Amino acid sequence: MSIAVINGGTRLNGNTDILTNCVIEGIHTDSVYLRDYNINPIIDKRHSEEGFQDRNDDYNSIIERILIHEILIFSTPIYWYSMSGEMKNFIDRWSQSLRDFPDFKARMASKKAYVIAVGGDDPYIKGLPMIQQFKHIFDFIGIDFEGFIIGKGNKPGDILQDPYALFTASHLNKKLKDIPQRD
Amino acid sequence: MSIAVINGGTRLNGNTDILTNCVIEGIHTDSVYLRDYNINPIIDKRHSEEGFQDRNDDYNSIIERILIHEILIFSTPIYWYSMSGEMKNFIDRWSQSLRDFPDFKARMASKKAYVIAVGGDDPYIKGLPMIQQFKHIFDFIGIDFEGFIIGKGNKPGDILQDPYALFTASHLNKKLKDIPQRD
Amino acid sequence: MSIAVINGGTRLNGNTDILTNCVIEGIHTDSVYLRDYNINPIIDKRHSEEGFQDRNDDYNSIIERILIHEILIFSTPIYWYSMSGEMKNFIDRWSQSLRDFPDFKARMASKKAYVIAVGGDDPYIKGLPMIQQFKHIFDFIGIDFEGFIIGKGNKPGDILQDPYALFTASHLNKKLKDIPQRD
Amino acid sequence: MSIAVINGGTRLNGNTDILTNCVIEGIHTDSVYLRDYNINPIIDKRHSEEGFQDRNDDYNSIIERILIHEILIFSTPIYWYSMSGEMKNFIDRWSQSLRDFPDFKARMASKKAYVIAVGGDDPYIKGLPMIQQFKHIFDFIGIDFEGFIIGKGNKPGDILQDPYALFTASHLNKKLKDIPQRD
Repeated sequence: MSIAVINGGTRLNGNTDILTNCVIEGIHTDSVYLRDYNINPIIDKRHSEEGFQDRNDDYNSIIERILIHEILIFSTPIYWYSMSGEMKNFIDRWSQSLRDFPDFKARMASKKAYVIAVGGDDPYIKGLPMIQQFKHIFDFIGIDFEGFIIGKGNKPGDILQDPYALFTASHLNKKLKDIPQRD
Repeated sequence: MSIAVINGGTRLNGNTDILTNCVIEGIHTDSVYLRDYNINPIIDKRHSEEGFQDRNDDYNSIIERILIHEILIFSTPIYWYSMSGEMKNFIDRWSQSLRDFPDFKARMASKKAYVIAVGGDDPYIKGLPMIQQFKHIFDFIGIDFEGFIIGKGNKPGDILQDPYALFTASHLNKKLKDIPQRD
Repeated sequence: MSIAVINGGTRLNGNTDILTNCVIEGIHTDSVYLRDYNINPIIDKRHSEEGFQDRNDDYNSIIERILIHEILIFSTPIYWYSMSGEMKNFIDRWSQSLRDFPDFKARMASKKAYVIAVGGDDPYIKGLPMIQQFKHIFDFIGIDFEGFIIGKGNKPGDILQDPYALFTASHLNKKLKDIPQRD
Repeated sequence: MSIAVINGGTRLNGNTDILTNCVIEGIHTDSVYLRDYNINPIIDKRHSEEGFQDRNDDYNSIIERILIHEILIFSTPIYWYSMSGEMKNFIDRWSQSLRDFPDFKARMASKKAYVIAVGGDDPYIKGLPMIQQFKHIFDFIGIDFEGFIIGKGNKPGDILQDPYALFTASHLNKKLKDIPQRD
């Protein structure tokens, strides 16, 4: 069992990073920080004859990188009550993969996913629509939505004051460690 | 009363465009197609000493353009159960405006907003979390959320088969026409 | 094709009744006004040996009455952002039917359902969780959720000022009339 | 600081009871089990001249009992993705108190509330609309929504296998114990 982390945060060592590190501490993962790459917005060509055009960016290499893993952790700050625009652009591009790679859906459908999200404004309530959206996304593509952790934090380090998030992260860490790892 | 349309669709004459055009038919608006501009993702510097850095893109010019209008129409296809990544990046950047422009919140707070969204997979149900997110966004910034139209469409032109969306669009068109326009 | 209306309102000629009457005008339906019956809350005995006990009320006769119809319209005022307690008690009792009547789920699963709901406090937004719950309910039992109408109204007759609700009701009325009726 | 528990479960020692007992262990509370009382559905008379009629049940005595406490814990099984019908009937009746008792809203508005809910079918996701409804309810009446615990359980005792719910309950227990208690 191998794990990829797709990290949508834009701040080095932000609260989302800290909480994610609690989850993966001591576990080998392939962590993709979207902020280090260029991912263009989708240009919807689902219904055009010429089809999607190559966007000349890092999307394809990232998607190939995560497709080899069995567990995906989507880790994002809650910006304006939803995932970061950078992560949204990444997910929007799945429509292109669905059309261009015939086995994309089948390969995604064999995976399990977790969501880790940290927000500052009442995230336990106002972050719920985002969780529902991840549920719809995973249902569509066939991924099992295994669980999520919402944390509360605004200023750097705030997340360390959120006992629920830390407990849940620590518990998930133990659970992931119990799964036999693949190199 | 003057109207800006912020259009997050990526397809020329897509279903979202068509429905939006029903709403603004015969009305002078300033329509911003985000796809024609370069808007970088936010780099969160809310808590850093140096503050946000100039992103050298079109965000500032667009935000100045919409700030002079009283009514904002957010028009977006529903990609993966939420607004397009391009529109999300635009809204994410508001955090930068909130810090860098002292009167940004006050100026936004005097506005009224509508949302127009078209999706293909059960949008009347699965689009609801996105509507709740717009509600949270507008509540935070102080904008009055005056209404929304969800339409159903997948292939180009599908929206013309959605009688509810067309009726609501036509009704909103009449309502907007009844407001004395400013040039 | 025959239609049952399950009406959870407590006020004669309330806004929910008015809107529902727009939907079924000129159509033969079997309308059940829950307020005219005694439906006790469920006493959860799913996991007890003795099983559910007869609650000596009108639930069984109502459920038998609606099971013979192909289309179910759930019509409820939005009280405190959800269906009325009377309607909730009715639905809670389905757990008893699921255990006691082996073909209950199969018979329900062949049906189509609509929801009609009227609320006073921002129902188009704050009524959305209730719609999501109906979706979950119908998904569980296997009913197709064909559509919903949310109306805005507080004082008696207010609903007549809601053009969207009236249009959608009128449109649904036409759609239902086009289905060949069974006596 | 004193605490009332409003318990909407129908099963003695059900999972919701067990989780609630973890929260209030060692704390003096006034626990109201709605199943032990008769609470009739509301008959909406907000807009009638004669006003609400006495329903000759236990509602008034229960509402007086909880009004003297500063913290309210709403504890309910998740039946069909929402609070039990019994709890819903109790909350629906608040509309009557709002009209008949001029200080009802002001007295409620000084309180803090928690929600404890246990469900069997993906409660962490499918229970979210209910949490949003409690948020709307508390916002309307002015109660501070201090937090919620969702647990997973179906068969009796299942909740003891939910580490997240148990941790959160234990943490809330400590927090409540730290508040100076009133007799």
